[in-house]
Amino acid sequence: VCIRGRLAFCFRLRNAANMSLPAPRALFFDVFGTLVDWRSGVAREAEALLGALGVQLDWLAFADAWRAEYQPAMERVRSGNLPYRKLDSLHRENLERVLPRFGITSCDEPTLEALNRAWHRLDAWPDVAAGLRRLELEFWIAPVSNGHIALMVALARRNGFVWSAVLGAELAGDYKPKRQVYERACDAFDLAPHECMMVAAHADDLRAAGSAGLRTAFVARPLEYGRGQASELPDAGFDVMATGIDDLAGQLGA
Amino acid sequence: VCIRGRLAFCFRLRNAANMSLPAPRALFFDVFGTLVDWRSGVAREAEALLGALGVQLDWLAFADAWRAEYQPAMERVRSGNLPYRKLDSLHRENLERVLPRFGITSCDEPTLEALNRAWHRLDAWPDVAAGLRRLELEFWIAPVSNGHIALMVALARRNGFVWSAVLGAELAGDYKPKRQVYERACDAFDLAPHECMMVAAHADDLRAAGSAGLRTAFVARPLEYGRGQASELPDAGFDVMATGIDDLAGQLGA
Repeated sequence: VCIRGRLAFCFRLRNAANMSLPAPRALFFDVFGTLVDWRSGVAREAEALLGALGVQLDWLAFADAWRAEYQPAMERVRSGNLPYRKLDSLHRENLERVLPRFGITSCDEPTLEALNRAWHRLDAWPDVAAGLRRLELEFWIAPVSNGHIALMVALARRNGFVWSAVLGAELAGDYKPKRQVYERACDAFDLAPHECMMVAAHADDLRAAGSAGLRTAFVARPLEYGRGQASELPDAGFDVMATGIDDLAGQLGA
Repeated sequence: VCIRGRLAFCFRLRNAANMSLPAPRALFFDVFGTLVDWRSGVAREAEALLGALGVQLDWLAFADAWRAEYQPAMERVRSGNLPYRKLDSLHRENLERVLPRFGITSCDEPTLEALNRAWHRLDAWPDVAAGLRRLELEFWIAPVSNGHIALMVALARRNGFVWSAVLGAELAGDYKPKRQVYERACDAFDLAPHECMMVAAHADDLRAAGSAGLRTAFVARPLEYGRGQASELPDAGFDVMATGIDDLAGQLGA
């Protein structure tokens, strides 16, 4: 990546070495895993809510089990077997599927509801808020998450994220990595796909964005699945590799 | 309106004197006229672009004539005669309808396009940016405008508006004052209509929001149509009457 001042710089193109493109105008962000630490946050919230009822279990394993239901639930929407519904609704179904596996066969409705909203109370990785503030000076920035609008707003207000707008699954009425989610985000900003860059810690998200014509930035989050666990590795095909949102801002000249 | 500290206060209900409700959780804002001065901004941009080509005309009258095509164009969408399209597209059709009336029968495409984007370069009334920053500390805030997402982002970045999300016509796929635009905005924030308040300088917008169950705040903008011209008067049925966004923030305890 070469940088010429703040406004003009070139990227290596994924598929054509030595070609350059103008800077992207918008950056789209994956949120769960890329910007916020869902695993420790869900574990903490579950321990606070269920622990108060006398439950003891492996809270991180519980978070992992709940998250493991995420892709299969979205796949029902992506495949057309279920009309689009907000992620809170899928999380709730998944929660009720997972609790019995941890020996919890009855739970009062207010606790279930509060537990489901654990996903609204997640903390950002420490580099995110300051990095987004730098990027926001130069680019239009938006979450393009599978989380719905209200969930994105809750996380933004908790963590001091500044968004130009909230795009993503709810606007598109479908879930990533379906192509239309990326296309709808570009269209909302009146931009061509090559003017937009998807930022994520997940290769499948970036590969789908790249297939739709967006540029791609991989952010390493080695702790997403916990210490000592495998995390996703970057792919030589991504345009930018970054160690965090602050590093991304630096590499993009912001 | 009575205020008890910053978090708890009551409003007079529109239709039931002496009933009180908890504070709203979200505020929705009309934008053209309520937050930004479209008339002087469109006149200024038209003079800059067309004046450079040697055109001389009454620039404020031109702005008024262009704006006068706004409601009839949206009505084609509201009535179902035209599928939803972004406001830029309606503005462009209206522009080409209005220019010949001012003696302009040919105009190059780059000038037409730049002129159409005059609506992206409007300035806010002086109380708005600071008022929104106060309100954002206490409430979720969003534009619920007939302008599309990219237009809202352009105006926000130009004027320092801070939004929780961009809601409105593009999300709903229809134009205010159609009921579904207000309902879709409440749903995006996971809120009931009575938890949301529409803020506008236009009685028809507020009456429609009120009919959908939202609370209503009228902001007086006596200069929207120019000095010495009639402007909209408040209606005794609105929950709050304010002289600006700063005054609104004060009345809502923010």
